[in-house]
Amino acid sequence: MGTGKKPGSLIEAELKNFKVRRPDVLSSLQQVELLEEKTVLKLHPKAKSDLKEIADNGLLSYKKNGAAKKYPPFKVGILFSGGPASGGHNIIAGLYDALKELNGESQVIGIMNGADGLIKADAKVLTVQDIDSIRNQGGFYLLGTSRTKVEKKESFDACLSTIKKLELDGLLVAGGDDSNTNAAHLAARVKKEGLNCSVIGIPKTIDGDLAYPPYLETSFGFYTAARTYSEMVGNICRDLPSSRKIWHFVKLMGRSASWITLETAFQTQPNIALIGEEIKEKGLTISEIIDEICEVVLKRHKAGKKYGIVLIPEGIVEFIPEIKGLIKKVNAAIVKIGNDEFMKMCLQARREVILVELDESTQRLFASLPQEVQNGLLCGLDPHGNVQVSQIASEVLIMDLVCQKLEKQGIKLTTQTHFYGYDGRCGYPTVFDATYTYNLGRAASLLVASKKSGYLVSLNNLSADVSEWKALALPLAGMMSVEERKGKESLVISKYLVDLRSKAFLEFSSLREKWALEDSYLCPGPIQYWGPKELVEAKSVTMQLNC
Amino acid sequence: MGTGKKPGSLIEAELKNFKVRRPDVLSSLQQVELLEEKTVLKLHPKAKSDLKEIADNGLLSYKKNGAAKKYPPFKVGILFSGGPASGGHNIIAGLYDALKELNGESQVIGIMNGADGLIKADAKVLTVQDIDSIRNQGGFYLLGTSRTKVEKKESFDACLSTIKKLELDGLLVAGGDDSNTNAAHLAARVKKEGLNCSVIGIPKTIDGDLAYPPYLETSFGFYTAARTYSEMVGNICRDLPSSRKIWHFVKLMGRSASWITLETAFQTQPNIALIGEEIKEKGLTISEIIDEICEVVLKRHKAGKKYGIVLIPEGIVEFIPEIKGLIKKVNAAIVKIGNDEFMKMCLQARREVILVELDESTQRLFASLPQEVQNGLLCGLDPHGNVQVSQIASEVLIMDLVCQKLEKQGIKLTTQTHFYGYDGRCGYPTVFDATYTYNLGRAASLLVASKKSGYLVSLNNLSADVSEWKALALPLAGMMSVEERKGKESLVISKYLVDLRSKAFLEFSSLREKWALEDSYLCPGPIQYWGPKELVEAKSVTMQLNC
Repeated sequence: MGTGKKPGSLIEAELKNFKVRRPDVLSSLQQVELLEEKTVLKLHPKAKSDLKEIADNGLLSYKKNGAAKKYPPFKVGILFSGGPASGGHNIIAGLYDALKELNGESQVIGIMNGADGLIKADAKVLTVQDIDSIRNQGGFYLLGTSRTKVEKKESFDACLSTIKKLELDGLLVAGGDDSNTNAAHLAARVKKEGLNCSVIGIPKTIDGDLAYPPYLETSFGFYTAARTYSEMVGNICRDLPSSRKIWHFVKLMGRSASWITLETAFQTQPNIALIGEEIKEKGLTISEIIDEICEVVLKRHKAGKKYGIVLIPEGIVEFIPEIKGLIKKVNAAIVKIGNDEFMKMCLQARREVILVELDESTQRLFASLPQEVQNGLLCGLDPHGNVQVSQIASEVLIMDLVCQKLEKQGIKLTTQTHFYGYDGRCGYPTVFDATYTYNLGRAASLLVASKKSGYLVSLNNLSADVSEWKALALPLAGMMSVEERKGKESLVISKYLVDLRSKAFLEFSSLREKWALEDSYLCPGPIQYWGPKELVEAKSVTMQLNC
Repeated sequence: MGTGKKPGSLIEAELKNFKVRRPDVLSSLQQVELLEEKTVLKLHPKAKSDLKEIADNGLLSYKKNGAAKKYPPFKVGILFSGGPASGGHNIIAGLYDALKELNGESQVIGIMNGADGLIKADAKVLTVQDIDSIRNQGGFYLLGTSRTKVEKKESFDACLSTIKKLELDGLLVAGGDDSNTNAAHLAARVKKEGLNCSVIGIPKTIDGDLAYPPYLETSFGFYTAARTYSEMVGNICRDLPSSRKIWHFVKLMGRSASWITLETAFQTQPNIALIGEEIKEKGLTISEIIDEICEVVLKRHKAGKKYGIVLIPEGIVEFIPEIKGLIKKVNAAIVKIGNDEFMKMCLQARREVILVELDESTQRLFASLPQEVQNGLLCGLDPHGNVQVSQIASEVLIMDLVCQKLEKQGIKLTTQTHFYGYDGRCGYPTVFDATYTYNLGRAASLLVASKKSGYLVSLNNLSADVSEWKALALPLAGMMSVEERKGKESLVISKYLVDLRSKAFLEFSSLREKWALEDSYLCPGPIQYWGPKELVEAKSVTMQLNC
């Protein structure tokens, strides 16, 4: 038995040769032209002043044109920023193929470890072997990534000097809302300095919170992550009526936004799915949330169903007023003590120093939380100076409180908690994400070739067949608005959170009562790369409903 | 967007129509005869006396024969026992198709909720609609399952009365080592009473610890579970060199046996995979295990790799002498207090009453454990009177101790724990498990038709193409040996644990040093049902190595 027989080696090799489809509009790049649309994104006054070099950018759309155009060779850099998302490697492959199509002498430069590599000029020319090794492969391992932000003047200067040194005609930044905000400022600086380098953003994030309908329908990696979690959740849904005795509490990644939870709910039809944005809008307290869950558990219990499943978005704790208040107070206490000092202490000592800093009612709330949740609050601050919300075991918190309440009524639940997150960021991209990213890379090449800078590249009409997908470019300046960050007004791309008036949320809220009591579970199973087209080319349900 | 577009509905429908292959020997059942082999399994004297009605059973093999035989109609019951495993539904489908092939008037009777349904005569005739609804579907939801054992005289009597009432010609029991031990005793009782009903065992367990090479190479559900966990672990392996900063500690289901961890290690090539059986054989203490892990972490750290992954089998705590001793003492303490009394207390009170019962050094060990692990030990006793080992967060324990030790050397790890288990028991069966179970059901029909009882049905030569698989039946009595259970000598089927002299373990131990330091990660990705044959029909690596 050779190692060549292992599925890991086999599928890796097969997918490297997997041909992704191209939209008609991007089939022959030399015949495509970019047209400025009449539609104008409303520009915030602060964007007009802070980003004046790219403030006049209009919305661009890609159109097929009869005449083939000739292009000189281009040198284009690419970097990943933030957490990995499936499809990233296909951005590189799509960009490479497209640049070679425009001019065989073109080069793709891989910038290592996100903005770190841009600051330190850590970069390499990517070879055809590099590219062929990563086609349709998950992860960001070819280049790595980091969460480094370019904010200080020295960092900006270092980036400009790298761009000059590498003689880049273009720089692609694949990242989320923060990284694209950063890309907009870099684009403006580059232009201000008179450098001829197009800075282009690519919409990356598994959280699904970088979108701008109808122009930007989704970010890459979202569907693969949600679909991977849905496989596991669907398997548990099949376990429920088989073993008939367990309540599962499942936390899903996604930061503040509950899109992943909503998508997983559509894919699996669980008994309960909490949506953070709804909790916030309705101002629900933790005890109201627990009451709602207990009501469903009790109704099912009476119907003889001693099992069920609850989906919990990672960011939920930030949406529950009293927990949010507690986090804020713990945060302030750690700042007062000093994070370095705090982190030197053992867990027991940390607990004691924090309790001293809290008022009496907050002390009581803190002490009432399960041990794991208390520990999560005592993990210190992240590099941005915030309590690490993702370390708070909200699935344990909610499970524990539900059990406590039901036990008082003489009902003892058998429970199990789960957390899916890191296991969905780097899987092989779904055919949807592989196709979306490959063609984003292709489309981005034309922005560089046309000397357009300060844009986010996008494809839309994604609910249609791939052949009918449209390509466009959104002016980054036009996407921005002003929000308070670290106590001051900042120009940022707003997170696209679940809107309770969106078609996806309305559909969910019309179905959830049925899902709660009946067993409407779906088991979507593993992502397929071959077989029935509808299955292989499946797409996010929330995206299809909302767009 | 209709619900019909969701992958969950689509794949469910597609797989219901998925045709599984049949070995040549089982292609036309009316032409198959059962031959008694000269090979005799060595019979334990206690089996000879306790199971004398089935003690003379010889090993049977299935042979193709020219002449087609005519059969009368049969009524065959089937039940699931213990935790779910993927492929169970195909046993029913294979049995149904086979019985109808032998005689169109035959019936399959579904026994509800495991042995409970047999005791209470809770059963239903399965229709063609029932069967078509479960083909290639995961879970045990058609019939449910339970952990009820038939041990007392009254239970045996109730089972016999159900068999009479339902006029069963055969009864299939799909279960693990315990359930098949039970089936052997039931077969003997049925024969003793002069009832003409064949009792046949089916090898079910995701844990992989029910095997009897070369006659029984694997149990059903093992490969699907291990392959499902491998998908998630492989995705994390892709995340490691992408985000480059996290050490993941992953616990995998599998009870005492480490087969799932070993198989997942072959599928993903992690940096470290702990094997419980090796720890036991070498008598490693917890601090020796932690030292070994820390050594790898430090070597990788020096090579600039601040990331890695450790696989931990669920049953590991039972193999570590001091933890095993602690569990034993906690167990005794809870028995002394009384489990009901103990479970009425809050967690803090439980902790206090247990500490009082422990000697000083055990108190210190208990107090040194992470909170989650302490809580796991305080969950009370399971129905068999044992501390619930699966509730002990061994991944947290090991992660915590590794971090503590490294912190003393000035190294701070970023860590994440995972537990995969319930999410791998009920997924769609792999094509291997779907084919294995469908044909086990087919083969079982012939044992009933030939009035053979007290057998475990099996297929072997499984590393070859499906067409070349062999069918055989193992005498249950011959599989049994004597072990101490609850303080007395009992006749049982021994658990098949990882043998350190097996080819699979030797291969693993020859590769692990390389895996520890280099990044040899594999990402097997999602299970495929269509596409390249080698991928679709992939099989367990440990099975292929060992058989």
